[in-house]
This record gives sequence, structure tokens and C-alpha cells, in this order.
Amino acid sequence: MNSYGTTIFAHLFGLLALILLLVWLLHYREGIEYDSDDPFRVFNVHPFMMFFGFIFLVGQAMLAYQTVPGTHETKKIVHLTLHLIALILGIVGLCAVFKFHDMVNWADLYSLHSWIGIGTFCLFGLQWLLGLGFMLQSSERSRVAMAPWHVAGGRALFFMAICAALTGLMEKYTSIKATQRESHLINFTGLAILLFGVFVDMAVGLRVR
Amino acid sequence: MNSYGTTIFAHLFGLLALILLLVWLLHYREGIEYDSDDPFRVFNVHPFMMFFGFIFLVGQAMLAYQTVPGTHETKKIVHLTLHLIALILGIVGLCAVFKFHDMVNWADLYSLHSWIGIGTFCLFGLQWLLGLGFMLQSSERSRVAMAPWHVAGGRALFFMAICAALTGLMEKYTSIKATQRESHLINFTGLAILLFGVFVDMAVGLRVR
Repeated sequence: MNSYGTTIFAHLFGLLALILLLVWLLHYREGIEYDSDDPFRVFNVHPFMMFFGFIFLVGQAMLAYQTVPGTHETKKIVHLTLHLIALILGIVGLCAVFKFHDMVNWADLYSLHSWIGIGTFCLFGLQWLLGLGFMLQSSERSRVAMAPWHVAGGRALFFMAICAALTGLMEKYTSIKATQRESHLINFTGLAILLFGVFVDMAVGLRVR
Repeated sequence: MNSYGTTIFAHLFGLLALILLLVWLLHYREGIEYDSDDPFRVFNVHPFMMFFGFIFLVGQAMLAYQTVPGTHETKKIVHLTLHLIALILGIVGLCAVFKFHDMVNWADLYSLHSWIGIGTFCLFGLQWLLGLGFMLQSSERSRVAMAPWHVAGGRALFFMAICAALTGLMEKYTSIKATQRESHLINFTGLAILLFGVFVDMAVGLRVR
């Protein structure tokens, strides 16, 4: 198994996590709708957008250097564009949870999950801007010097995003009365998200070494 | 900042997490005692041993190639020995939570935290045995070929251990009625654990590239 083999595992676990999350939110929970009067349908936009919109797309963006055919420039533009889409969908996901808190009158940014999540998201925006700035402005030489730091920072932020997702799942899980079947589904979703993170990180690590 | 600079941040956040965890368990919670009649004092052995005994020492073991002076052989023996101590203290930590569940009659291995935790711990034991086997048995050439996989596997398991710690903190946090002050302390402990993980991983990544 090489870096490409690891990429395949990353895709498999990413898709598995996405399917399990959809089964959970659509079948066991209330469904997903931003403009609903049911606050829990609004809330469900949050886990869906933060995983599918943000983490899944960020993972795909990180893998783009291995999975996208074409020149290095093409890969770089896919990497940048997927990250931008992820940022926008992530903002939708964040808006959903703030809207939910407004609807049910709960405090914002209270739990460990929320602290990790908002911190990671802000640093991620900064990392994206720095990456764009370096791409547009710098000389070839300073871009080469910055690359290991960009990669190390990106991997750290991705790791933090996975931690945010798992702590979020735990927070939701303990606030509902889940049947054994539902709690197993939640656990398998969490494991799939974790293994998606592990294999994306490993694929990047084996590529850049 | 280079790999050594990152190591310093890793130490700082590791010590900070340890101090915050002790303040939490000793001042806000019931204290730490394996042979207590109070099940919550028994429980508290679990977070303490899993962080200080396991994660903190594993992090030190991963940094040993940068922080321990002497020959490569010396560093390797420190790396191996610290991991062995971490495994043993981790087992004590796991026994504590099973004992707690027995005392209060709760089901074992139910939550996402417990699934991530036990899975990581078992794979960690396997990784240690594989590492020892390769060190004792293999030729120089096959050791060199295995090294990137040993490093990638070890980093993935460390990442998973941090996820286990954070989901565990979330699980405990939602099962107690914490004051705002205590919940802030828990959040800062979690952030310190997360940043310890990030900087250990980054230091290893910058060393091996």
C-alpha cells in the first residue's frame, strides 16, 4: 500500500461517514431544513454542513494533489477552490447552529466542542488567506520555503476539525435519549469520521515525505 | 521555528493540560483514589491515568528522538521504554473505569468515546509489539523500509488517542452539572490536550520530512 492506496481508504471512510450521517439525520432524527419552524430540523443543518460541506470537502481538497489529474497548477486551483467552497458551506453550518440557539434560547459557544470548532474554523480561514496570499504574491523560493509550514498547519487544522466533529457527536448524543440502535449508528458514524481523518492525514504524510 | 521549537510548545501544552486536569480532578471533582468506596474517586483514576499515564508519556516517547541526548540506540530504548510504561499505566486507567462501571452498575463500552478509546488502545498494543519485533528480528534494510509505516501508524494512533481524550471530556462534562467556572476549566483542559497533540504531531512531522 502506498500513498494512493491510503487515498482509497480515505474515500471509502469519507463516503461511509456521509451515508451514516444522512441515515442518522433523516431517519432517526428530524431531517434537515434551514428554514423550518422545528428548531431541531434547523440544528441538523449544522452536523450535515460541518461534515459534508466542510470536513469532507477539506479532505478532498487535501487529497487533490494525488487524485486530480493534470498539471501542478490545475491541482493547486482545485485545492484552493474546494477549500473556498468548504469555507462557505461551513459558514452556513455555523449560521444554522447560531439560529438554533436563538430559536431555543440557549447560550452560544459554551461547550468544549464549540470552543474547538470556532477556534479551528477561524484559524482555517486565516490559513486559507495566507495560502492565497503566498500563491499570488511570493517568489518561487519563498513559496518553497513556506510549503512545509502550510502543509503542517493544514494537517493540524484538519486534525482539530475531526476533534470538533467527534466532540460535537458526543455532545448531541448525550443530549438525546438514543435507543441502542441509534447510539450504535452514532458510534459507527464517529468511527468513520475518525478513520476518514486518519487516512487523509496518512495519504498527505506519505506524499510529502 | 523548527522541529525543536515545536517540541517546546508540545511540552508547554502537555504540562498545562496536566496541571489543569489535576486542578479539575482534585479541586472541582472528588479526588483520585483507586481503592476508594466512592465510585467517583475511582472513576477519576481513569482520566488521570489515560492522560498523564498514557497520552502524555506516549507524546514524550514520540519526542524522544528530538529531546533525549545520546546515540540513536539510546533514543530508541527511551522511546520503547516510555511506551511500555504508558501501556501499563493505560491498563491501570482502563481497569479503573471498568471498576467504576461495576460499582455503579453501568454498561461497559457503550459510548463513542469508549469505542474510540478501546480500539485505539488495542491497536496501540499491537503497534508496540510490531515495533519491538522489528527492532529485535529484522535486517537493517527491512527496518528502514518499515520506518515510515511505523511513524505513520504511530501518529495516527496518537491522533486517535487525543480524540478519545476529548470525547471522554465531553462525555463527563455532559454527565455532571458543572458551574460556568468548572466548564471553562474543562474546556481549557481540552484545548491544552488538543494543542499538545497538535504540537507533538507537528514536531514529529517536521523531523521526519
